[in-house]
Amino acid sequence: MTGIAGDLLAALPEGTVVLEPDRMAGYRWDRANDPDAGLPLAVVRATCTEDVQETLRIAHRHRVPVVPRGAGTGLSGGSSAVDGCIVVCTERMRAIEVDPATRTCTVEPGLLNAEVKAAVAGHGLWYPPDPSSFEICSIGGNIATNAGGLCCVKYGVTTDYVLGLTVVLADGTAVELGGPRLKDVAGLSLTKLFVGSEGTLGVVTRIVLRLLPAPRPPSTLVATFGALGDATDAVLAITRRLRPSMLEFMDRPSINAVEDATRMGLDRAAAAMLVIQSDEPPPAAGEEIATIAGLCKEHGCTEVFATDDPEEGQAFVAARRMVIPAVERRGSLLLEDVGVPLPRLGALVEGIAGIARERDLEIAVVAHAGDGNTHPLIVFDPSDADQQGRASAAYGEIMDLAIGLGGTITGEHGVGRLKRPWLGDYLGPDALALNQRIKDALDPHGILNPGAVL
Amino acid sequence: MTGIAGDLLAALPEGTVVLEPDRMAGYRWDRANDPDAGLPLAVVRATCTEDVQETLRIAHRHRVPVVPRGAGTGLSGGSSAVDGCIVVCTERMRAIEVDPATRTCTVEPGLLNAEVKAAVAGHGLWYPPDPSSFEICSIGGNIATNAGGLCCVKYGVTTDYVLGLTVVLADGTAVELGGPRLKDVAGLSLTKLFVGSEGTLGVVTRIVLRLLPAPRPPSTLVATFGALGDATDAVLAITRRLRPSMLEFMDRPSINAVEDATRMGLDRAAAAMLVIQSDEPPPAAGEEIATIAGLCKEHGCTEVFATDDPEEGQAFVAARRMVIPAVERRGSLLLEDVGVPLPRLGALVEGIAGIARERDLEIAVVAHAGDGNTHPLIVFDPSDADQQGRASAAYGEIMDLAIGLGGTITGEHGVGRLKRPWLGDYLGPDALALNQRIKDALDPHGILNPGAVL
Repeated sequence: MTGIAGDLLAALPEGTVVLEPDRMAGYRWDRANDPDAGLPLAVVRATCTEDVQETLRIAHRHRVPVVPRGAGTGLSGGSSAVDGCIVVCTERMRAIEVDPATRTCTVEPGLLNAEVKAAVAGHGLWYPPDPSSFEICSIGGNIATNAGGLCCVKYGVTTDYVLGLTVVLADGTAVELGGPRLKDVAGLSLTKLFVGSEGTLGVVTRIVLRLLPAPRPPSTLVATFGALGDATDAVLAITRRLRPSMLEFMDRPSINAVEDATRMGLDRAAAAMLVIQSDEPPPAAGEEIATIAGLCKEHGCTEVFATDDPEEGQAFVAARRMVIPAVERRGSLLLEDVGVPLPRLGALVEGIAGIARERDLEIAVVAHAGDGNTHPLIVFDPSDADQQGRASAAYGEIMDLAIGLGGTITGEHGVGRLKRPWLGDYLGPDALALNQRIKDALDPHGILNPGAVL
Repeated sequence: MTGIAGDLLAALPEGTVVLEPDRMAGYRWDRANDPDAGLPLAVVRATCTEDVQETLRIAHRHRVPVVPRGAGTGLSGGSSAVDGCIVVCTERMRAIEVDPATRTCTVEPGLLNAEVKAAVAGHGLWYPPDPSSFEICSIGGNIATNAGGLCCVKYGVTTDYVLGLTVVLADGTAVELGGPRLKDVAGLSLTKLFVGSEGTLGVVTRIVLRLLPAPRPPSTLVATFGALGDATDAVLAITRRLRPSMLEFMDRPSINAVEDATRMGLDRAAAAMLVIQSDEPPPAAGEEIATIAGLCKEHGCTEVFATDDPEEGQAFVAARRMVIPAVERRGSLLLEDVGVPLPRLGALVEGIAGIARERDLEIAVVAHAGDGNTHPLIVFDPSDADQQGRASAAYGEIMDLAIGLGGTITGEHGVGRLKRPWLGDYLGPDALALNQRIKDALDPHGILNPGAVL
């Protein structure tokens, strides 16, 4: 075989290069299910940094696009294949080394977030970032999107835990950035630049993560509200004074979808429910929860339930984590990820409810409320072209609404391909041009994940 | 007046442009006292983003170097003037707006770190990063160097608190990056790229900082050790399991210099002293301190003293903060900032003691031990050329030692001009080239702080 495929086969170990269309089909889409996903020329199932380097050297020589891919759970189409590309998949790169003495681990990108958590927990340590998809998403994808999760309100996002990276650049050069040093300001902050770059600047092949000691068992509070605005006012009152370890929001459609799936007795009539945890050491956790319960009552909550039993609390966290799959039972989803400064959270959720009414759509809103980061889930029937069109219009209107409220078009999922049309509106021309200058400097031929982000 | 000075006078408000050599002399050096500092052509005492834009437009047109400057307290020569440059000083940009609802503040770069802390404390809030120089260093300089401090062992460094920036680029374009949104992944992580870029990529004129609720009063432990290795072993035992809010180290020369200055009764015979705090809520703080005391005893400490009285604890923190001025009484200083992965901390401090013996120098070591970040203070008499030469040699040998131990040449002070000769040895050629590509993309004519970092 000659040409690019021949070069890949000659350069890479047996079993690494996939050329069969059937097998390649499994690498065309991520969870955004972009209908415009292209046909790859080849899929490289890399096992090490050198595999990725060989692949990028060949891609660079032939000016072929490269789409990096982790577990394929992205929600913005950042891993959708493009026609004639090489998909570089890191699913077989799964090594991890935990170093309790430096409280770090060195991990390859294909390991799942949950597997990282489990491996470090074996040493009494904790890797906090916890996207809702933590059981199926890869740590490499988390780096690519600077993933968030439920713990972020107290413990920050992925970038806060990344001390070092090995990155393969567009021409195949592998560069080591940072390492297991807790403070390091020698040179530009390049490690941080690659986190969240969605495969547009390089392919990450090794990650050094900072870890924390194991978390304490949390106390949990569940509060229901009769009005959206009461719930968001309560969120503001809490975040002004306190640092709960979780502060999540579900609106009525979310509560009802979960209740349909679980019959756990959630209040179907509530306009909103907050799930809040404190992981302070006892008795401070109970005191914090009591203070929060007081603030919820001051803001008109209809019911509060508090528990120090971690398992009982976990049931409500599981209910919260189940929102997306539960709403998915009701139709296809367009999954949003808009965020606003906290005081605008009420305006955002009420505005989304207004868009749902106007477009005659079901939109369930679940939110990392303490971060101002919401996930409106737009439900539609893919066989109903008119409804699909209204859903698509609402998707854009929600981003426009967020931008108008001083918010962002994506809090933690990334821009990918689906949100690219809105990036310029959000960033403005000067910041967009600055993004492009960095992109051009690192990928002058534009082969890295073209069409994503920029 | 014609030429560059004339353009500056014409473009900027009265009182902004300083051209008198006497007055400009105060803007030539930072605290690194670089003997090679050059003579500026003009000093611009900017009052707003537009002043900085006008200045950079003129500098860009004339291809004149620009040296950004905050309070001039940098320790690596990052603000040393170069011949014929325009110094852009932000000391007059001192506005701050605190927003308790978003738990953020928007601040101009000239405000001192301590003034930021004080302003937000008025709203019951806390800006954690606390360089030892916090009473005299500017927040803009903190952004430029990604400054650290004593709290970082639990609360992270400057970049962890920066949500947004306004940056004036080399051609005078002002770009707004990020903002008061706790999660935002729309576009590349450019805010993070500018933090720690030491004025080589742009001039920061506005900063949005994330804040925390006011800290709790800490409990304090002071432990003394008869051997350096016992103290560093104790540090490792503590950081494996616990998250103290402070974990500082002083060696014998540091202890003695402070005792000379204060007569507070420190143990002059101790090889090392640790100052440790816990800010957990009671009674957890006392329990954490008791656990730490036990670990210190297991590792052969000669004495421990614990107190829940914040003022009593503060006296030891003040002693720790006094190390640099106290050692400065003994001669001129070359101030180092090397860091290593925690398990190599013992090898680093023992290696430094070896260099001191071999070079017949007094080197006092004070360290943010929990981060593996040390400040060896090399004392010399500037009138003794031979000793000055040995001090200068030791300065390099300490960086070589750190690099050999897998460490960094600068943990929190920055590369500036003094450490630039070692940056390539530390980063390696590929990472250095990557730094240069970013620099060239953002500052194609190399006018921003030339000679610093790269």
